[in-house]
Amino acid sequence: MLLLCLMSGPAFTQMNSSTPHQLLPVPARFEFREGRLAVTKAFTVAVKGHQDERLIAGIDRAMRRLEGRIAFELPRGLARDAATATLLIECQGPGKKVPAIDEDESYSLEVTDRQAALKAATVVGALRGLETLLQLLESDRDQAFLRAASIQDQPRFPWRGLMIDSSRHFQPLEIIKRNLDGMAAVKLNVLHWHLTDDQGFRVESRKYPKLHLSGSDGNFYTQDQIRDVIAYATARGIRVIPEFDMPGHATSWLVGHPELGSAPGPYQIERQPGIFDPALDPTREEVYKLLDGFLGEMAALFPDDYIHIGGDENEGKQWDSKPQIQAFKKAKGLKSNHELQAYFNQRIAQILKKHGRKMIGWDEILHPDLPKDTVIQSWRGPASLVEAARKGFRGILSAGYYLDLMHPASAHYGADPIAADSGLNEQQLALILGGEAAMWSEYVSPETIDSRLWPRTAAIAERLWSPRSVTDTDDLYRRMAVISQQLEELGLTHQRNIPVLLRRLTGGGDIQPLRTLLAAVEPVKNYNRGRQHPTTMLSPLTSLVDAAQADAPAARRLAALVDGLLSDAPGFQANQAALRALLSEWRDLPPAIESLHNRSAALRDADSLARDLSAAASAGLEALSFLAGGTAPAPEWREAKLATLSQAAKPRDALEIVIIPALRQLVIAAAELPQLRTSSPGDWLKRVKTLAAEKVPETRR
Amino acid sequence: MLLLCLMSGPAFTQMNSSTPHQLLPVPARFEFREGRLAVTKAFTVAVKGHQDERLIAGIDRAMRRLEGRIAFELPRGLARDAATATLLIECQGPGKKVPAIDEDESYSLEVTDRQAALKAATVVGALRGLETLLQLLESDRDQAFLRAASIQDQPRFPWRGLMIDSSRHFQPLEIIKRNLDGMAAVKLNVLHWHLTDDQGFRVESRKYPKLHLSGSDGNFYTQDQIRDVIAYATARGIRVIPEFDMPGHATSWLVGHPELGSAPGPYQIERQPGIFDPALDPTREEVYKLLDGFLGEMAALFPDDYIHIGGDENEGKQWDSKPQIQAFKKAKGLKSNHELQAYFNQRIAQILKKHGRKMIGWDEILHPDLPKDTVIQSWRGPASLVEAARKGFRGILSAGYYLDLMHPASAHYGADPIAADSGLNEQQLALILGGEAAMWSEYVSPETIDSRLWPRTAAIAERLWSPRSVTDTDDLYRRMAVISQQLEELGLTHQRNIPVLLRRLTGGGDIQPLRTLLAAVEPVKNYNRGRQHPTTMLSPLTSLVDAAQADAPAARRLAALVDGLLSDAPGFQANQAALRALLSEWRDLPPAIESLHNRSAALRDADSLARDLSAAASAGLEALSFLAGGTAPAPEWREAKLATLSQAAKPRDALEIVIIPALRQLVIAAAELPQLRTSSPGDWLKRVKTLAAEKVPETRR
Repeated sequence: MLLLCLMSGPAFTQMNSSTPHQLLPVPARFEFREGRLAVTKAFTVAVKGHQDERLIAGIDRAMRRLEGRIAFELPRGLARDAATATLLIECQGPGKKVPAIDEDESYSLEVTDRQAALKAATVVGALRGLETLLQLLESDRDQAFLRAASIQDQPRFPWRGLMIDSSRHFQPLEIIKRNLDGMAAVKLNVLHWHLTDDQGFRVESRKYPKLHLSGSDGNFYTQDQIRDVIAYATARGIRVIPEFDMPGHATSWLVGHPELGSAPGPYQIERQPGIFDPALDPTREEVYKLLDGFLGEMAALFPDDYIHIGGDENEGKQWDSKPQIQAFKKAKGLKSNHELQAYFNQRIAQILKKHGRKMIGWDEILHPDLPKDTVIQSWRGPASLVEAARKGFRGILSAGYYLDLMHPASAHYGADPIAADSGLNEQQLALILGGEAAMWSEYVSPETIDSRLWPRTAAIAERLWSPRSVTDTDDLYRRMAVISQQLEELGLTHQRNIPVLLRRLTGGGDIQPLRTLLAAVEPVKNYNRGRQHPTTMLSPLTSLVDAAQADAPAARRLAALVDGLLSDAPGFQANQAALRALLSEWRDLPPAIESLHNRSAALRDADSLARDLSAAASAGLEALSFLAGGTAPAPEWREAKLATLSQAAKPRDALEIVIIPALRQLVIAAAELPQLRTSSPGDWLKRVKTLAAEKVPETRR
Repeated sequence: MLLLCLMSGPAFTQMNSSTPHQLLPVPARFEFREGRLAVTKAFTVAVKGHQDERLIAGIDRAMRRLEGRIAFELPRGLARDAATATLLIECQGPGKKVPAIDEDESYSLEVTDRQAALKAATVVGALRGLETLLQLLESDRDQAFLRAASIQDQPRFPWRGLMIDSSRHFQPLEIIKRNLDGMAAVKLNVLHWHLTDDQGFRVESRKYPKLHLSGSDGNFYTQDQIRDVIAYATARGIRVIPEFDMPGHATSWLVGHPELGSAPGPYQIERQPGIFDPALDPTREEVYKLLDGFLGEMAALFPDDYIHIGGDENEGKQWDSKPQIQAFKKAKGLKSNHELQAYFNQRIAQILKKHGRKMIGWDEILHPDLPKDTVIQSWRGPASLVEAARKGFRGILSAGYYLDLMHPASAHYGADPIAADSGLNEQQLALILGGEAAMWSEYVSPETIDSRLWPRTAAIAERLWSPRSVTDTDDLYRRMAVISQQLEELGLTHQRNIPVLLRRLTGGGDIQPLRTLLAAVEPVKNYNRGRQHPTTMLSPLTSLVDAAQADAPAARRLAALVDGLLSDAPGFQANQAALRALLSEWRDLPPAIESLHNRSAALRDADSLARDLSAAASAGLEALSFLAGGTAPAPEWREAKLATLSQAAKPRDALEIVIIPALRQLVIAAAELPQLRTSSPGDWLKRVKTLAAEKVPETRR
């Protein structure tokens, strides 16, 4: 119960102009004022200047969400009188017909006691402003209101994307749509749609139907559905860039068209995660002929300026083993597979140009001979973008934004597209366009994908929209808890599906013990999940690790409590009761988890985790008692407890207890109590933290 | 916390052949045996006899659900060797091409230590058996298994339906689909789709596009979507019967075609709930001409034998005020509007016959001149069906199965399509085909509809499938908790969306106090919601009442605890601690609810409810102390406490505290303590219950 309370975020809070705000991403410039604009049944909206269907639909969506929160009906339709309207929207023009990289997304919003005035140069700017307006909603006992404010806002970067991999695990249409709504809510503007890979070819090709019919198990998007998604995205000011990964990551192309491959085949849809050999044969003209036809078809379907050709992780094994390809390289004077791939990319660039499209690809495509309007997407890091910019190429960052690696939001928040020491000049800096969160889908199902996307994607969205100086991680987490709940109104399931997974795991038993466990537990990071809990693309993703979140709900809270307690040396009164309560819940957990496990073999290592968590929490409680009593433990206690904590830190079944660093601080503080007599509390605390940070098996908090 | 635990159902439990089973609906004949069939990674499926795409797809769906529960991957594809397969399915033939009323749905299932053998005459029978198989899954610490059993099963009634009203609130396609999965899970076989009403015309008519274009705000199903739904239903052995309500409930028809109305118009889509005047004009040939064209188009779209013409609640006001209609009645010798409607119905019956369809309609259409293959759907009660059967008409029951009236599952469970004293002979009894749950949608949105449908629809499904003798309500609730959780794996949101509503209502605050409150609170019954909390079809349905459930999670539990305590007279030891804990949570609730309300005006009457609930719980706690201590309260205490309870029983904002009857028993028992000296505990308890049942403002538990 206590943990449950700790997990829930802040809320409609009673604020004055100095109270922390709930805006995410933080606007470029803003100021809060005394006062409020009441949201009553007489709330009206008027539009001045330009208006069109997209704007009207966007206003309608915003008003319906507002209604959902206040739980009463607002008048429909637009008011005639701009002066008396509660919300006045003034829009100068429609903006781009197809959302594009040079869209003006700026807006201003002035909220007073009498009116909210939203001004923008384009409809997209107005849509961005409406999202901010919704974030200004608060309530007290008697009524809901918008907080008085003056906001002038525009994005830091023009390219703020989310990549969704629909290949590894197909994601039905409604999942793409609700995530477009989520993206719009945090002002992202590019859906990068990874549509083909070894594990599935997910787009209908009417010209080459064997591609999707043989390569998808029937799980592909029809062209009508693609158009539907594009219209949905366009309505929200979001570009849609398709990715057709080539020449590697191409198994699914080859199931229906083995003749395109660099080895004879036959090929089958890949079921495993990983990097595989199949690659298109860059030496055969039939390959370019098909790609010309296919990319022409896709260019007619996707209106965005850019088409993503992947280009990553082609290890060239098939190329090395085919004599004809070796001979081709020799004949053309291509010294390496990288040069062969560059040749391939240039051919593709010509094809794209013919169809009126520009190229974007991963780091590996970078080559001086490519057209200068090519965009480099970096999974390697900001240094690659600096290198690309020096060569005159534009770039976007995805390194640091890989959501599948299960790092906490704070880690993503810390990754900036522009390295602080980039050494680039103004002109080169302008080539760094932004970044994209990347949701690779080896380990996400339609049921779990939202919980991997949100709320962490909001942190990346803020990094890409807000000024570089906005870096307060605690404040990010505070606001992320608010937006996380608001995202639910869009149908996103990141919160609601976690209890569903837990109920299924317990066969309908009481899930509270599992929630208490997971409050201190996260999935393992990077690519360790696949090693510890191997699954294929056909496996159910319904294990405990699938219900664990990248930010364990109680971990930051515990760390803050410990910090407060230790900073209160030598008395150690601060946060004592809260710490004791929190740790006691974990200490007492094992019997309940064991009893659940006794009825569900699917819980696997849950009680080993619970026992180690309990032992670790007990160590923390003992430390607490020593600190509170001012008596130091016996010398052997320190090593025994640190050993207990090391044991608890060991990952199992792709899960790890993440509160160990905070508990190490408690244990070492207790052991170091005698040092407090001879050093200042400040120095003592520094020493404790240094000692605690040593030799921690998994350090990141 | 305590309440949360009480709310969760039972689970995978360790059972032997005498332990209660988890089957719902209860099979016609079944026996459990000692033993179990392990579900391991080597689980294989073989098919003997007939096989087709529908069967293979059904097996695949079942295996994926099994995988989701056990959390590991099972082999794909069918095994060759029937003898060694873990699951052997033997199917004699495909059954009907289009699911029909005379489909053979019977199956047998024999599970031993070595194999599960499922036999059926038709594919639909096999699908029903697969659902039973999934309900046999249990687990212990080491592995999941199917409990050994011998089951021979078939339905009591051939027509077991669910009506979904897509008119009042449009329900997107995926909601219809996931509810078809839910229906299949509890062996329902008819989706009755209410597609037109005053508030919306929800089906695309290519012949008369003004019908849906003017009558739906753009919220209609395309014919492709309808075909998609029918294919989805057919794959699950479910018939799809469309309803086009006429001649009343017809406003939405008239928005685009005012010339069909009995008054000149113009007409607008109705936004209010209720019964309205607009009706088709039965005297004009153009009306029949359009209906002929429209119903012909619909007959080509919907393959089921039946088309539902509504026919309900036409109050004839427009008919009375139009002289031409009066003249027509006179000319034709029609003495009443009922006779005029019967004339209309006969014309429609001829049109339907021409298009190869039979008619179904609500009670009002019953008239001796209708074709004898007409089916009467009764919202009035079993007596109407008896009357219809006497006249030779077939019938199905919906009275007692109206989910929108927010009665508990037990009430629906108690309604039998055949009145015990029907007096019908065998042949007449055979005319009563079954029944349909009815989900009218005045007060359900896509977000809340599942929570009104489930798990209560499971109780109705059991009433219609299982033998008449299956009537143990406590056992129903035990099994309903299990199936409720299993239904979640189909994507149904009946559980997961409740916290979403509560989080929105609290602006992301701690929702636990609201859950504790709602554990004792239900929406008001029947049509009281509209009076106490009026909303239109455009209002947000995001208030506290929308998060309250028809079966308050803790109400039955409290009643059982009180019953146990009072049956333990004169010692009153049984359940004391549990009762004290439960009542104390409610007693202590007001400060937390008030603090939530202070931040959210949308919570409206929540703290008045919490205060009254707290006072009522305190009265219960006082009674408990008197009973435990064996000392009687002062005489004035009784009336004071009963007044407190009466106050608490008053509904507000469409919500009511439903634990009052149990608390009245406690209070009266305490007041009646002195009587225990002079009467036997049994007589005393009877007296207490009689007294408690008097004058209860809302009695139903």
